[in-house]
Amino acid sequence: MSEADDLARRVADTMLSREGTGPAWGLVIEEAREGYARVRMEVRADMLNGHAITHGGMIFALADTAFAYACNSRNEAAVAQNATITFLAASKLGDVLSAEARELSRAGKSGVYHVSVKTCDGRVVAEFMGLSRTIGGAVIN
Amino acid sequence: MSEADDLARRVADTMLSREGTGPAWGLVIEEAREGYARVRMEVRADMLNGHAITHGGMIFALADTAFAYACNSRNEAAVAQNATITFLAASKLGDVLSAEARELSRAGKSGVYHVSVKTCDGRVVAEFMGLSRTIGGAVIN
Amino acid sequence: MSEADDLARRVADTMLSREGTGPAWGLVIEEAREGYARVRMEVRADMLNGHAITHGGMIFALADTAFAYACNSRNEAAVAQNATITFLAASKLGDVLSAEARELSRAGKSGVYHVSVKTCDGRVVAEFMGLSRTIGGAVIN
Amino acid sequence: MSEADDLARRVADTMLSREGTGPAWGLVIEEAREGYARVRMEVRADMLNGHAITHGGMIFALADTAFAYACNSRNEAAVAQNATITFLAASKLGDVLSAEARELSRAGKSGVYHVSVKTCDGRVVAEFMGLSRTIGGAVIN
Repeated sequence: MSEADDLARRVADTMLSREGTGPAWGLVIEEAREGYARVRMEVRADMLNGHAITHGGMIFALADTAFAYACNSRNEAAVAQNATITFLAASKLGDVLSAEARELSRAGKSGVYHVSVKTCDGRVVAEFMGLSRTIGGAVIN
Repeated sequence: MSEADDLARRVADTMLSREGTGPAWGLVIEEAREGYARVRMEVRADMLNGHAITHGGMIFALADTAFAYACNSRNEAAVAQNATITFLAASKLGDVLSAEARELSRAGKSGVYHVSVKTCDGRVVAEFMGLSRTIGGAVIN
Repeated sequence: MSEADDLARRVADTMLSREGTGPAWGLVIEEAREGYARVRMEVRADMLNGHAITHGGMIFALADTAFAYACNSRNEAAVAQNATITFLAASKLGDVLSAEARELSRAGKSGVYHVSVKTCDGRVVAEFMGLSRTIGGAVIN
Repeated sequence: MSEADDLARRVADTMLSREGTGPAWGLVIEEAREGYARVRMEVRADMLNGHAITHGGMIFALADTAFAYACNSRNEAAVAQNATITFLAASKLGDVLSAEARELSRAGKSGVYHVSVKTCDGRVVAEFMGLSRTIGGAVIN
C-alpha cells in the first residue's frame, strides 16, 4: 500500500470514528485510498419509506459519506458544496448497499467525484456526482 | 381548507405513518397542501458528521421527504428521479431545521420542485431541486 | 427604479455588450434588477437539434445567461460553479423563449438562483438551478 | 469494429447531419461507439462571454451533444431529461475542446452518462452528468 493510500485509509477511519451518523447507519468502510472510497450499509426497517423500499435520503446519505471520504483522502479538509443524485432502481429491507466514490477531477479548491450505489449483486441503485471544496486545514494531525 | 389541500394533508400524514424513517428521524409535518409541504426535524447527535455539524445526508433526507409529500400531494403516486442539493451553511446539534417544498412546474408525468432548508431563525442551510415522475396508482384509497 | 435595480440593469447591459454570444444568439434583456434577470431569445434554424426541436444546449445557454446577469446584479463579479437543468417540454422554430432568473439565497461567496425557461404563452420548457461564486472585483467601474 | 459500434457511429453521424446546431457550432465527431461518444469544437469569438472566456452555455452545449450521441447509440431514440454541470476551468478563443461521454448505467427507460470536457492538452474544463429517457422509436431506419 502506498503512503498516499495509507493516509487516505486513516483519514476515512478517523472521519467515521467522529461521526454520529456512522454507527447510527451501521456504516462499514470497505476500501479507502487516494481519491477513492467504498462504503457499505445494510438496509434496515428504519431506513424504509412508505413503499417499503429504501428511502432516497438514506441512499444519498450513503453516497455522500463515500464522497466525503474520497474528497478528504489527501488529508486536506474539504466539504460538499453541491451534489446531484439519480435514482435508478429500488432496494429493500436487508439489501446490502455499497457506494463507490471515484475522483473525476480537481482544479484549485474544487473537486468533482462520481459515486455509484449498487446492491451486492451489482444492480445500480443510484448514480451521484458531487462537488467538493477544500476549506484549509487537515482532517488528522 | 380546500378539498385539494385537505387531500394533500391526508396523503402526507399517510406517507409519514408508513415510513420507517419518519419516527427514526423525528419528522413533523408542519403544513401540507396541493403542491406544497413543510417538514421539521431537530438535529440530534446521531445526525452529526465528524465536524460536529449536521451530516449532508440528513439535510438531503429532510428535503427529500418534503419533496416526496409535495409531489404526491394530488394522491397520484410519484417517485423521485433526480435531485440536486447545494449546501450553503452549517447547522448543529439542537438546531430545528425546516424544509419547505414548492412545486415549480409539471408536464406529463414529470414534476419539478424546489425545497429550501432553513434553521428556525431563517438562515438557509441548503437549496434543493427535485424531479419527480408519476408511476400510476394512488397513495391512499 | 431603485439605485440597486438601476445598477443591476447597467451591469446586465454591460455584460451583454461584451459577449460574443449575445449577438450570436440574438439575446434581448427584458428586465434586470437586483437578484433578478429576464432574457429573451427567438429559436432559429441553427438552434435546432435533429428532431427539429430546440437543442438542449441552447435552452441551457439562455438560462445560464439570465443566471449570469442575476448573480452579477450587485456589480460583484461572480461566475457559475454548477448548474442543473430539467427539460420538461419541447420548443420549435420561431418560438420566443424567455428565461427568468430569481435569487433563492446567498451565503458568503455563494449564491443560488432558480431560472424558468418558458415559451411566450407560458408553457414551461425547462427548470434550472445554478450555484454562483463571487470572485472579487466589479463588472463595471 | 463491432456491429454495435458501427451502428452507434452511423446514428451519431445521422444525428449530426440533421442538426442545425452541428454546423453552427462547427462540431466534429471524433469517435462514437456503443454507449460512448467524443465530440470536438473549436472556441470561436461568437462563443465567448464578457470575460473573454468560453460561455458556459457553449460548454454545456458541447457536453450535451456528446451525451445525446452516447444515449442514442443503440438506435433507440432517447432524450435528455436532466443534466448537471460543474465548471472547473476557463477556456479561451482558439482552444479546441473535446467532450467525452461514457455510459454509467441503464435501468428500464433511463440511462445515466458522464461527460468530461477537456482542452486538447488534457485540462478539465467541466464535468457533466446527464439522465436520458428512451421515448420509443429509432433514430435511423
